[in-house]
Amino acid sequence: MGMLIDGQWHDDDRIIEDGAFRRLPSRFRGTIGDNIVAALGAEAGRYHLIASSSCPWSHRTLLLRELKGLAPAVPLQLAGGTRVEGYPVNGGRSWTLPGSDRSIVHLHELYSLADPLYTGRATVPVLWDSREGRIVSNESTAICRAFDEAPAGGLDFVLRPVRLRDAIDRLNARLQQSLFNAVYEAGLAQRQEAYDAAVARVFASLDKLEARLAARRYLFGNVASESDWFLFSCLVRFDAVYFTHFRCSRRRLVDYPHLWAYARDLYAWKGVAATVDFDAIRAGYYRNDGVHNPFGIVGVAPEADWGAPSGRDALGAAELALRQGGSRAIDPGSLRPLEPAA
Amino acid sequence: MGMLIDGQWHDDDRIIEDGAFRRLPSRFRGTIGDNIVAALGAEAGRYHLIASSSCPWSHRTLLLRELKGLAPAVPLQLAGGTRVEGYPVNGGRSWTLPGSDRSIVHLHELYSLADPLYTGRATVPVLWDSREGRIVSNESTAICRAFDEAPAGGLDFVLRPVRLRDAIDRLNARLQQSLFNAVYEAGLAQRQEAYDAAVARVFASLDKLEARLAARRYLFGNVASESDWFLFSCLVRFDAVYFTHFRCSRRRLVDYPHLWAYARDLYAWKGVAATVDFDAIRAGYYRNDGVHNPFGIVGVAPEADWGAPSGRDALGAAELALRQGGSRAIDPGSLRPLEPAA
Repeated sequence: MGMLIDGQWHDDDRIIEDGAFRRLPSRFRGTIGDNIVAALGAEAGRYHLIASSSCPWSHRTLLLRELKGLAPAVPLQLAGGTRVEGYPVNGGRSWTLPGSDRSIVHLHELYSLADPLYTGRATVPVLWDSREGRIVSNESTAICRAFDEAPAGGLDFVLRPVRLRDAIDRLNARLQQSLFNAVYEAGLAQRQEAYDAAVARVFASLDKLEARLAARRYLFGNVASESDWFLFSCLVRFDAVYFTHFRCSRRRLVDYPHLWAYARDLYAWKGVAATVDFDAIRAGYYRNDGVHNPFGIVGVAPEADWGAPSGRDALGAAELALRQGGSRAIDPGSLRPLEPAA
Repeated sequence: MGMLIDGQWHDDDRIIEDGAFRRLPSRFRGTIGDNIVAALGAEAGRYHLIASSSCPWSHRTLLLRELKGLAPAVPLQLAGGTRVEGYPVNGGRSWTLPGSDRSIVHLHELYSLADPLYTGRATVPVLWDSREGRIVSNESTAICRAFDEAPAGGLDFVLRPVRLRDAIDRLNARLQQSLFNAVYEAGLAQRQEAYDAAVARVFASLDKLEARLAARRYLFGNVASESDWFLFSCLVRFDAVYFTHFRCSRRRLVDYPHLWAYARDLYAWKGVAATVDFDAIRAGYYRNDGVHNPFGIVGVAPEADWGAPSGRDALGAAELALRQGGSRAIDPGSLRPLEPAA
């Protein structure tokens, strides 16, 4: 998607090193201060979430915003991947902001506004402070955690509770390496060996998760955590794009009975289905990857019944009341957290 | 794969017209004379089959050669898709003949040998008369029919019997248009609308076949025909390459219970599994399609148990004796042929 160098936009594509894809770290990272966390729900309209429906890291923030009841207070600006006709900024290979203030067409302009000498990719998601005109964060995890802890009207428990914090962080880090980013390393590889190694990691990771989720409803037992939603944002893209366009074609999600039921279980949560736009997901990946898909052909959607009952209630009914609309009948602190599998 | 024009090799790629793939007809076509049909089994070693393990039209001839017991008399020269290092014929974008007489490295040289002013693509399969140094045919259907009628030691019934001839020809023509070539039109399309139209035809065709094969063991009832083997050569490639590389990603073969069992039923015939080289199939498609797959990355094999029992014996046991090794207990002429579904 190109990048900014010292505030100037360049249309170069992704970072490929020796035929392998290398992801650059986000730049506006770091934790988000308590004052901002408190203001998220309170100062309605001040903070904007800029996110893409196709990007899984964006999706995490869309999920947290929804689950945590922040939608009324934190407006959403969806970023599109389509070129803007007639807009001559280096061919326009950047996320666009359709429907936003038309003085800003491309996301990278927002980055330059926040830092006139910015160097780096103009990525989503972005938490934008519209009052100060600055990027609060472009790091999905930091945004998710601010949303998780912001007082609002959604779930009445945090998805990254203190007692599970280390375990969640360890699992997230492992999944980032073995799955969330590995599918990109497979799909964007320009050398067979880089692809082969990435695909092997992807399926070793899915096999492990399938075993882990055979007997427990969520990754840490019978209460959903941040890790579950991070994993969900990957699984929901698997058959739609990773299996086909990214060539992770050994097994589909639907071929893993436990993982597939687990994904449908999460999909059934209130507000979640509305964050999943399968057409945007396929269009985003197929159209933005001109290097591997020169004609931009968007593959047909694989058939899958995401609305089929998951049958996972029997594995632990603790979440049930919460799923139905946020009852306080259950104290998540009373649930015995399970340690992640080694 | 390039083509010959007036006997000169050109490295141009496939024929694309307005973003859609157009297949050219074979040149050395037409029926093969009765004298050659009789000589196929009799003059051992005179006629050579040149075929590729990845090409489905080649595969038809490999199947017929095997089923009809012609392997001892008709030597097989496998054509490879790999560039030959150091061989400077226009970059070598043609089928190669590994292990053959090294004075002939590329298949197109054989075409030029047969006709010094040949214009057209140098395709497989080819039936080559080694005594006369000429191409008998490069049309898979003509070669299949010669093999089908040649007296040899294999199946003791013809796969295109007179009473079914018209029905078989009609069905083959329909499947060629709606499925066998439509997957190529999907995969090689350079325009979204051309792809969409082709994919729609592919799945309409598979849906129809699924219904047709729900209650009958083979396309024309309880005796296998030429059409079944033509269909088999397509189905065996579906999940391996058409679903992924050609983006026919609505449903896999394994998602069609009857078609998938039918394909395994045919796969279990004596000699058939040996004609299926899944690695060569994936490599052939992924590596030869540099236009759509610029880095030549070969996708991982999807898991599928081709050896699982098909459970289709109950639909008609007539073939059983023949499958076990060619008993003459059954007179195929006594079987009631079924008309193809409209």
